[in-house]
Amino acid sequence: MTSATLSIDLGALVRNWQALDALSEGETGAVVKANGYGLGAPVVGRALMRAGVRSFFVATAEEGNILRAAIGQGPDIYVFSGHMAGDTKPMREAALTPLLNSVDQMLRHVEALPGHPFGIQLDSGMNRLGMEPGEWSAVRDIAVAQGPTLIMSHLACADEPDHAMNAHQLAEFRAMTDGLEARRSLAATGGTLLGRPYHFDMTRPGIGLYGGLPFVDAVPVVTLDLPVIQVRDVMQGETVGYGNTWTAPRDARIATVSGGYADGLIRAMGSKATLFAGDVPCPVVGRVSMDLMTVDVTELDHDPAELQLMGRHQSVDTVAEAAGTIGYEILTSLGLRYARNLMT
Amino acid sequence: MTSATLSIDLGALVRNWQALDALSEGETGAVVKANGYGLGAPVVGRALMRAGVRSFFVATAEEGNILRAAIGQGPDIYVFSGHMAGDTKPMREAALTPLLNSVDQMLRHVEALPGHPFGIQLDSGMNRLGMEPGEWSAVRDIAVAQGPTLIMSHLACADEPDHAMNAHQLAEFRAMTDGLEARRSLAATGGTLLGRPYHFDMTRPGIGLYGGLPFVDAVPVVTLDLPVIQVRDVMQGETVGYGNTWTAPRDARIATVSGGYADGLIRAMGSKATLFAGDVPCPVVGRVSMDLMTVDVTELDHDPAELQLMGRHQSVDTVAEAAGTIGYEILTSLGLRYARNLMT
Repeated sequence: MTSATLSIDLGALVRNWQALDALSEGETGAVVKANGYGLGAPVVGRALMRAGVRSFFVATAEEGNILRAAIGQGPDIYVFSGHMAGDTKPMREAALTPLLNSVDQMLRHVEALPGHPFGIQLDSGMNRLGMEPGEWSAVRDIAVAQGPTLIMSHLACADEPDHAMNAHQLAEFRAMTDGLEARRSLAATGGTLLGRPYHFDMTRPGIGLYGGLPFVDAVPVVTLDLPVIQVRDVMQGETVGYGNTWTAPRDARIATVSGGYADGLIRAMGSKATLFAGDVPCPVVGRVSMDLMTVDVTELDHDPAELQLMGRHQSVDTVAEAAGTIGYEILTSLGLRYARNLMT
Repeated sequence: MTSATLSIDLGALVRNWQALDALSEGETGAVVKANGYGLGAPVVGRALMRAGVRSFFVATAEEGNILRAAIGQGPDIYVFSGHMAGDTKPMREAALTPLLNSVDQMLRHVEALPGHPFGIQLDSGMNRLGMEPGEWSAVRDIAVAQGPTLIMSHLACADEPDHAMNAHQLAEFRAMTDGLEARRSLAATGGTLLGRPYHFDMTRPGIGLYGGLPFVDAVPVVTLDLPVIQVRDVMQGETVGYGNTWTAPRDARIATVSGGYADGLIRAMGSKATLFAGDVPCPVVGRVSMDLMTVDVTELDHDPAELQLMGRHQSVDTVAEAAGTIGYEILTSLGLRYARNLMT
């Protein structure tokens, strides 16, 4: 097989959820948007449901629809983008709970689906999604009377525990919601780690479940092994790959592996990335191609059959650093050509 | 619907192939690897087959299998990664033609599938895929006697017409193949534009079909419109998005659109990207989130229902420049959440 193998450890995923759940005072939900952070919302959702998750969060109604088909009736599925035009049918048929972001969305929801559950998303300072304080104060009494199942907001700087924005958003959120009957949620993974004052009635971790920072105690969930297509000798002074960007400083042995930027191995990482043959690091040389990477395996005493990008020696965050991005983007970029190996 | 709409103009795709075919002396194939450069190999393959393409190129046997199911028997499907361990079954069942990259692959192929068509990939200096000159001279007579349907190589610097590597690779390729009976191919899109000496018996354009550089005369194939979820007033001095990276220099009106790096809107483009409301450019502000981007729409006299990233005003290459990459990666990163609108 030419396909690389992406192994997904659903047991590790569940242990990460359990560890975050142990930190949380109230309920612990799970964010499975962007196809379960690239790992597959249906399999991730089913594993977490079996572990006890009763509240899931997705980005769009379409994602909610797919998740509902996978997990069946029972758990709540909250939709961050709220109730958009055209969302009424999936909201009703898949029993999704929109997190209403504006007065416009609230009007659309109560007109189209009177009595259908909803939550409220408030903007506490990130200026991205949710009702503004002024907007909220105008509709709060009407909204609360309708019994929202959740009132939530999202932190902009939770990955930086000392950032003043955290306390500022916490105060804003409390000012908008203290004294109300409804259940409240403010914290994703970063907010969960900020401590109890940020937890309210529900935390909703995402990246931490999948083994990424800022949850430093997360266990790794993904392993990615790339098969070697061929290995060649390259003489000192010869070049490798597009644009001749790498010139061999000495005679070298170069492996070409199946896996490139079309598989989410972000082109920007180029020769800053390292693959592993067992415990031996092997640097990527030259540019990442669409389907291929070239790797210096001169230090090995054998030609490897495969090389590992993520796993025991490198986390999603190490790879992200090589690519100049964050672990979240490494995960959500993982492509469709991998043979996916689910481990429980 | 919360989904963004990715419109794919299959008529434009076909016109690009026809334009490149008009430049080529011999046969003009088509590269549809990486799921047809992100646009969908089945739909792209069927459209090109109807236009007259008889030779397709994919990266892996698995991709060949999917393409064969879409286009049926008849056209040749060449596999760049050659005949890997485990590929025998799909090679036989989907009638794929491996481009053998090494003596190891040649031995595997003739042992597993004697009499089954194959091509040869030669390395003319890129040091990525294909037999080296020494390897080739050792097996050339045996290989040619088995009647390869194609002997090919790939250019490392064809996007730079003045690069000395082009003439060097052309000379290497001719030295390895002149006088042989088999059909030959050296040029992808860039090589096709280098002129007739690079064309041999078949050109095999990829990126040019999909509207990307270096084919400057390509017509655009993709349009991407992102729906607006909500629009808010942001006061001078307020911040927007993760990490508070953007501070409003004046009172502003900010739209939040559905579409983020999980949709392939590469995080690195950040606030270097621009969306369009009709003819009016609207800058992205703050960080690109997983599912969302925030856009300054202050200059508009209305709140837009959607904003366009790619289309009449911006090509894949313009967007690539904002992200510090190439159009190829923008295309192959396009995600699965889009509503795909096929135009013929």
